Amino acid sequence: MKVSREVPVTAWKPGKGLLPDRQRLVRDVVIPYQYRVLGDQQEGVEKSHALENLRLAGKKLRGEPVTEPFYGMVFQDSDVAKWLEAAAYALAYGPDPELEKMAQEVIGLFRDAQQEDGYLNSYFTVKAPERKWTNLQEAHELYCAGHLIEAACAWKECTGRDDLLEIVEKNVDCIYRQFMEKNTRGFPGHPEIEQALLRLYRITGKEKYRELSQHFVDVRGQAPHYFEEERKNRGWYLWEQDNRDVLDTDYTQSTQPVREQKDAVGHAVRAVYLYTAMADLAGETGEEALQQACRTLWESVTHRQMYVTGGIGSTVLGEAFTVDYDLPNATVYAETCASIGLIFFARRMLHMEAKGEYADVMERALYNTVLAGMQLDGKRFFYVNPLEVVPGISGKAVTQEHDLTQRPPWYACACCPPNVARLLSSLGSYAYSQGENTFFTHLYLDGEVESTLGYGLSFDTDYPRSGEICCTFHGEAETTLAFHIPAWSQQTTLTVNGEAQDLSALVKDGYAYVTRQFREGDQICLTLDMAPFKVYASSRVPADTGCVAVQRGPVVYCAEGVDNQGDVLSLSLAAEGTLTEEPYDPDLLGGIVPLMGEGWRSSPGEALYSRKRPERKPADVRLVPYCVWGNRGENQMRVWLPEV
Amino acid sequence: MKVSREVPVTAWKPGKGLLPDRQRLVRDVVIPYQYRVLGDQQEGVEKSHALENLRLAGKKLRGEPVTEPFYGMVFQDSDVAKWLEAAAYALAYGPDPELEKMAQEVIGLFRDAQQEDGYLNSYFTVKAPERKWTNLQEAHELYCAGHLIEAACAWKECTGRDDLLEIVEKNVDCIYRQFMEKNTRGFPGHPEIEQALLRLYRITGKEKYRELSQHFVDVRGQAPHYFEEERKNRGWYLWEQDNRDVLDTDYTQSTQPVREQKDAVGHAVRAVYLYTAMADLAGETGEEALQQACRTLWESVTHRQMYVTGGIGSTVLGEAFTVDYDLPNATVYAETCASIGLIFFARRMLHMEAKGEYADVMERALYNTVLAGMQLDGKRFFYVNPLEVVPGISGKAVTQEHDLTQRPPWYACACCPPNVARLLSSLGSYAYSQGENTFFTHLYLDGEVESTLGYGLSFDTDYPRSGEICCTFHGEAETTLAFHIPAWSQQTTLTVNGEAQDLSALVKDGYAYVTRQFREGDQICLTLDMAPFKVYASSRVPADTGCVAVQRGPVVYCAEGVDNQGDVLSLSLAAEGTLTEEPYDPDLLGGIVPLMGEGWRSSPGEALYSRKRPERKPADVRLVPYCVWGNRGENQMRVWLPEV
Repeated sequence: MKVSREVPVTAWKPGKGLLPDRQRLVRDVVIPYQYRVLGDQQEGVEKSHALENLRLAGKKLRGEPVTEPFYGMVFQDSDVAKWLEAAAYALAYGPDPELEKMAQEVIGLFRDAQQEDGYLNSYFTVKAPERKWTNLQEAHELYCAGHLIEAACAWKECTGRDDLLEIVEKNVDCIYRQFMEKNTRGFPGHPEIEQALLRLYRITGKEKYRELSQHFVDVRGQAPHYFEEERKNRGWYLWEQDNRDVLDTDYTQSTQPVREQKDAVGHAVRAVYLYTAMADLAGETGEEALQQACRTLWESVTHRQMYVTGGIGSTVLGEAFTVDYDLPNATVYAETCASIGLIFFARRMLHMEAKGEYADVMERALYNTVLAGMQLDGKRFFYVNPLEVVPGISGKAVTQEHDLTQRPPWYACACCPPNVARLLSSLGSYAYSQGENTFFTHLYLDGEVESTLGYGLSFDTDYPRSGEICCTFHGEAETTLAFHIPAWSQQTTLTVNGEAQDLSALVKDGYAYVTRQFREGDQICLTLDMAPFKVYASSRVPADTGCVAVQRGPVVYCAEGVDNQGDVLSLSLAAEGTLTEEPYDPDLLGGIVPLMGEGWRSSPGEALYSRKRPERKPADVRLVPYCVWGNRGENQMRVWLPEV
Repeated sequence: MKVSREVPVTAWKPGKGLLPDRQRLVRDVVIPYQYRVLGDQQEGVEKSHALENLRLAGKKLRGEPVTEPFYGMVFQDSDVAKWLEAAAYALAYGPDPELEKMAQEVIGLFRDAQQEDGYLNSYFTVKAPERKWTNLQEAHELYCAGHLIEAACAWKECTGRDDLLEIVEKNVDCIYRQFMEKNTRGFPGHPEIEQALLRLYRITGKEKYRELSQHFVDVRGQAPHYFEEERKNRGWYLWEQDNRDVLDTDYTQSTQPVREQKDAVGHAVRAVYLYTAMADLAGETGEEALQQACRTLWESVTHRQMYVTGGIGSTVLGEAFTVDYDLPNATVYAETCASIGLIFFARRMLHMEAKGEYADVMERALYNTVLAGMQLDGKRFFYVNPLEVVPGISGKAVTQEHDLTQRPPWYACACCPPNVARLLSSLGSYAYSQGENTFFTHLYLDGEVESTLGYGLSFDTDYPRSGEICCTFHGEAETTLAFHIPAWSQQTTLTVNGEAQDLSALVKDGYAYVTRQFREGDQICLTLDMAPFKVYASSRVPADTGCVAVQRGPVVYCAEGVDNQGDVLSLSLAAEGTLTEEPYDPDLLGGIVPLMGEGWRSSPGEALYSRKRPERKPADVRLVPYCVWGNRGENQMRVWLPEV
């Protein structure tokens, strides 16, 4: 029933430009770096122990003495699985014997850590074998399994090999027995396996995986609440909050069955992972009630609870959504993983129905929060993505301890860094999708993509540096090419072999549909409107009233102290002021188009409060893309500036 | 060494106008209401049980069976003591047999609850006698004792009776033995007894009370840290946070000895209660090091961590100070008690040295946060005083659960309501002070005050409705009258018997000193500049950039939804716009001067983000005093509005 499906990661070959460069950075730097971190071979970073945990599990299963304890989060295995998934994608570029060796070693660790019956989780095998399946609410067993499933699918897709798939199918069979054959109640506290099982279903064609995914989605939030039952029975807990008198079912999006949920609540990553699976399932089955629930939750997230940077989950308390329009810029959480999950959700919504809105949000999250999650050198990462940073307050005030001014090299809870890696190294599967005889382009990347419709496309662009995108058709077919027309592009032109087209006739719901008998070398060229513009938040958002943000294409800009005499707080943009593009600077922040805004600088004032309006002088406000902030040392940063 | 000392509460007779009216409200409504609450006789409010706890202690001491448990906070006794202090002040107006009966009953409860050795605390006597003095960090024994001391001093001062003083002195002797004679280490986790003991010292003339106060101030924060020692020894705790691995000594202002402290940190009420005692002691002894510490801490609080409403302590986490310039308006804490404590601190600083800055802050805290702490009917109270309220977010978002949109009738932790009562019913002791031959007026109130310098003054004013203040001299003396000239008054005139004076010659450090041979009927008239004005925060305060607040005299204004079509978030004030006084409305909000500001109303915008600047239409922004917000049902409220 889906309008379209993603193309395999291998179908896309990245070319030049911002995102392809980042994808190469992931392959060349991030993946080897993270391998060293996971193996505790990287000096001066937070200890991971993730590979060692798997080794310990293997030893234990072989009956060898295990002298060391399990270390780290209960979901430490998932860091490895996500890394492995990214490594698989990286191998799609072409052979890399060293990386392949690393990946094979890691697959071996998983193989050794797997129990006879297929069970696979180093935490429980090493530390608490008697507690298996007793704490679905918080122990992340199904979550870790989900990530390993995704790694296996990626590994199969990119290398053609079945070895990891075999391990994973044996593991899923174990899970299937537990929850389907034995009829054990339960569903994961942290969704992930639901979307992974659908992927496994598509790769293997085995219906039981889809069935298990559907099961986990359907039983979620059914009464009597499974987690209540579990708490009564289990007698142990991982975190203090799980032991509270009142179970917070919103945290796990399980207060109601999924089809009855109207508002995005709770832990933001869990939420969008769940919604992704719901949308994927709804697309597969065509079930209207589930589709409608997805649309309702999509609106709750993106129409009322999303930052302009595509960040979601505004509070550190539970890493969660709060209430509509509560989007503080300084105390914000906006976890990198949550924006990655929002991209997952957007992709599945796009497959369900081709609406530009979904691709718009995908772009917003990708070019802003997700890219901001990684330092330009690929070795430092943000977990939390503030829209305002003031050294002395950010990271220091007790309400902003989580809002760091600089990216750390690793985290005790390291979910985000490998998540960025796997997303950026599989961009092709987000950028394109294909329907029966329609090929969709959702994101503009320089490079080549192959469809299974008997043709390929090559894209020539340095987007988002410029809005010129030229797509060349390879092959011959009567088909439809659908191009996303971003909502921010005010003036868009589209030519076919040089002939201007009437865009209004072609565009429906944010996509331009070009249908014809295409021939080798046919060219469709798009010009998107890259003029910088100001963005205003609805005045329902208290944090942004009187303020303005600046965007150029999908890229949200910010003012940093280093470009503005160290003081961003005293800057404002002039209501009638212009925004000017500076020349592209290939040496600045990895290559950016800086902007200059006409504005004002006030004197900060000696007194805390004064009846004298601060003296205001015209000032040029220099702006750089938000995604590269914090790459030049600690300094003030703001996305929203007062407009006067 | 003090420049001046307060006049007794009994020296002032309130006349007409805002604060005298509030003082009468306290006597007529608040005190009887709170008596019913404390006695659990008020329907539909949070249970107090405070009187009952004392009764239980009495029963236990008499050997009667105690079937009921202690209920409430460990410091529940202090609610009663504060009420009793307020009741004593109310009796200074003149006889009130019913109130006197209530007070006598309560004194009887304290008497019955006192142990042979003088120990007096219902929590420990009823619930945990074996744990006495083992948890000074959190158990509030010395804090409760302090409040009872203040009540006894007030009772003596206002009724001349010694009965409560006898109980209290017996109690203090018990404390003196414990900490001075037995040389037990320790100091209170919540300061209060330090300032109370100084008051007791002045009432009784007994040096040992001053000595004990000095002792508690001096040992605070000395190494090895007493609370570390205590935690190791006691094996019990009241609150989870006391059992954390790391002791947060900032919370109790005990990381360093007081003379070394430079920044106001930790629980805001504790902080200002401590600083009050330090300033009082420094004034008594003239010790330069302590005086300097007080000045440094004063600046930390009021130059860098205070809201424009005089609120302090910006975070709910620990009800505490955070870091300089971190003053969020929506997630704010700004406890009513903290602003009351700031007034205490200001008073003692004023006695130490006559600087208008201290009186300015006293006025700011009093006319804004403290008055806002109480509903106009005297039966509902704010604990937390936000500067921005948005129904749907305030009180709902997990980071704003404490920021209520409406005053509740009582609290489980009910420190604020009786604190407001005792402050408002003893205003004379804040408004005036006298030095060797100088009489200071710090606050302008209609009414009469007697000095002990052989003369009295009567004030005729409806301040802050108007800035006209006429002071008539009663008696005959060569003396100096010192009048506070608020820093906000841009144009002030002072006449003596109708003759204009050269103010610049009279004013020093915010006080106009008028020295002459005064005769009966001499009139000093002041005209303060009550023109409404705009206030700007330093741009170092991220929360207020681009925004403006409005003040008239000491009264900070706010916009409420009820006056502004229900939507305050879409309002801004015009940079060049006027502020106009509306006629005084005696029937609105207890009698106020509403203001109208020229401004703008934007359309809230359909989309969360839009590149279209919201359409803006000129609009009158109606403003009312912040201190009366929330008296007309739940609605939006803002102190800081964008200025465009």
